Amino acid sequence: MAATGSLAEALVCPRCGETYSIGEVHQLCECGSPLLVRYDLEKAKDTLNRNSFHGRGANLWRYRELLPVQDDRNIVTLGEGYTPLLPLERAGKKSGIPHLYLKDEGIIPTGTFKARGAAVGVSRAKELGIRRLAMPTNGNAGAAWSVYGARAGIEVTIVMPEDAPKITRNECAATGAKLYLVRGLISDCGKIVGAGVKAHGWFDASTLKEPYRIEGKKTMGLEIAEQFRWQLPDVILYPTGGGVGIIGIWKALKELKEIGIVEGPLPRLVAVQAEGCAPIVRAYQEGKKESVFFENSKTVAFGINVPKALGDFLVLQAIAETGGCAKAVSDEQILAALGELAREEGAFVCPEGAAIYAAAKALREEGWIREQDKVVLLNTGAGIKYPDTLNVSVPYLEKDAAL
Amino acid sequence: MAATGSLAEALVCPRCGETYSIGEVHQLCECGSPLLVRYDLEKAKDTLNRNSFHGRGANLWRYRELLPVQDDRNIVTLGEGYTPLLPLERAGKKSGIPHLYLKDEGIIPTGTFKARGAAVGVSRAKELGIRRLAMPTNGNAGAAWSVYGARAGIEVTIVMPEDAPKITRNECAATGAKLYLVRGLISDCGKIVGAGVKAHGWFDASTLKEPYRIEGKKTMGLEIAEQFRWQLPDVILYPTGGGVGIIGIWKALKELKEIGIVEGPLPRLVAVQAEGCAPIVRAYQEGKKESVFFENSKTVAFGINVPKALGDFLVLQAIAETGGCAKAVSDEQILAALGELAREEGAFVCPEGAAIYAAAKALREEGWIREQDKVVLLNTGAGIKYPDTLNVSVPYLEKDAAL
Repeated sequence: MAATGSLAEALVCPRCGETYSIGEVHQLCECGSPLLVRYDLEKAKDTLNRNSFHGRGANLWRYRELLPVQDDRNIVTLGEGYTPLLPLERAGKKSGIPHLYLKDEGIIPTGTFKARGAAVGVSRAKELGIRRLAMPTNGNAGAAWSVYGARAGIEVTIVMPEDAPKITRNECAATGAKLYLVRGLISDCGKIVGAGVKAHGWFDASTLKEPYRIEGKKTMGLEIAEQFRWQLPDVILYPTGGGVGIIGIWKALKELKEIGIVEGPLPRLVAVQAEGCAPIVRAYQEGKKESVFFENSKTVAFGINVPKALGDFLVLQAIAETGGCAKAVSDEQILAALGELAREEGAFVCPEGAAIYAAAKALREEGWIREQDKVVLLNTGAGIKYPDTLNVSVPYLEKDAAL
Repeated sequence: MAATGSLAEALVCPRCGETYSIGEVHQLCECGSPLLVRYDLEKAKDTLNRNSFHGRGANLWRYRELLPVQDDRNIVTLGEGYTPLLPLERAGKKSGIPHLYLKDEGIIPTGTFKARGAAVGVSRAKELGIRRLAMPTNGNAGAAWSVYGARAGIEVTIVMPEDAPKITRNECAATGAKLYLVRGLISDCGKIVGAGVKAHGWFDASTLKEPYRIEGKKTMGLEIAEQFRWQLPDVILYPTGGGVGIIGIWKALKELKEIGIVEGPLPRLVAVQAEGCAPIVRAYQEGKKESVFFENSKTVAFGINVPKALGDFLVLQAIAETGGCAKAVSDEQILAALGELAREEGAFVCPEGAAIYAAAKALREEGWIREQDKVVLLNTGAGIKYPDTLNVSVPYLEKDAAL
């Protein structure tokens, strides 16, 4: 079926309920909460069903109706989405989870799931007439917004800690973004961007400060549902930094359920963090609705080094409402899991992706994951983007050597 | 339509015409030429048409009938293929080629087109019962065969020059391949592998020494045809090192034409090389049927630094029969083209991919490419795999700075 138009009808605040027009530029709600896009799901019930998406393009725009872009001509795309869902037979056997799957977000422009948020976020920025945007980043999000910004012809300013991965630096600089490296942390970068936004009128594209990135991330949930032929898995594990992905997946599945395309309980959503930066896990364990800034955070999984996320309360709500949990793993577990997935499955994932495999193994040992559960590991990026994570030791040969 | 089985029926030598059984392990023909897979195209005429592939999985296995794997259970996959075909409007305007497209092979497992050859090659190795294989590599092919070998449970030995990209080294080591670094060139690695093959009975997976890698690469041609709705483009530019891709695309299009799925003249195929390593271009200019070893080769586009390719005569034949050409560009042109594509289109390609954009611009200036031509640039890999190609200079800020 050919796609019809977007069914987005308003922006709504998940905290205070205030609504805003979809036709105007908005950032946060006046109450300080992120805004979410609301769709006309009644109309969706009449127009969408399980067969609607069959045979459409192999990218996230196949879910056109459930995305916020109003006019097709504003779509800025590099072919992102509809990433592979791979069975992990050997790792499943090894971990006691026979129905184990990997949703591999490494197979996407820029090599990480950040491309989804950037594709939809930049498309909406273009649609709303935004000419200049800015954001702080630990690397991958800035790279993705630079790349899509270049494709859209939007001026992008990126402020990044000096120790962010060199590859992401290259992506920003090559695509013509105004890139600055800060001798400090991402929180320092955030302050510099915040001041710049006020001084220069840039659009603030920081995580959850604009409402459309999450709609791009949402498509991971739509794809998982479709790739399982609308029979939802039991558990989805997600590496949680800012948390936009897990919130997006949760939103996607709720929308599909309300439309009637999926049935039954939603998958139990698991927020995975590193022991060196586990604010969500702490809040979950203490039964709190918000997290507390995690001091002196440090982990090999750079992408989930987020001491306090703006959307933390939504992540905790997603966990609570789906019967999920939050789980922390050590850097040692992460690196061991990375090697095991690579050797057993040929899946060379990023450290954040490795963290969820480590968490799945631990949760299976604890009995929280049951043997019959259908479990999805969401790998957020390609291992090739992290050349410094592994320190391999390789034998050298002279050119006339024999093996 | 659900896929039916493989229509592969024999291996045939393109030089002397000798045929071999598809059910046995073969490497080169006795005459020294690479072997090609022949399909039962008469049967294909009865069973395949333009609609056959609609709605199938978004990966290269959608062309199941035109691939050599006999039993589905032997398919070793990480979800490779069906990569995006992107219009390049701004670069098209800039270069005077309004109908310019990028087939982006960066969006694939391991980040380069080598995944296609490895997926099909390793699947066939598994099917034929091969337990141990070996190859010399400049990096990306070795990485891909290591990754797919791990997924198949096949032991892989990789021999690589010490100055091959560190990322590819990581991919081999992480996935458990037996990796050796040689203080020498790929030709030295080839000698070491050749001796090891004789001594240990490994399967020799060197470029074109086994007949199935090319079948994987072929799917790039099938996809281009399908993504243009079976209306073939006028020109396809391909960065040519070993040349397997261009031979594969040519083979694919000839098969589709014989089946009757495409009509009219084939696209003019252009082999693009670097001025610092241009054996095919030299042979083309001199009207020769084979190339001569290119001494002291050197280029920033590491992946096409191949001084003498085993399949050179097939590349030259593909060019001649399609009315194509061979074109060399300088490293300066390559780096300039890389920046231009990134800034204008958000397409952060590998140096080899940038070379073809540079070549397209030059051929348009010379009038060889006409304004109305529909032109495809085949980018063989993601820019993120080449962190050392670009040397970006970025301003530093103190953490209390203002922009």
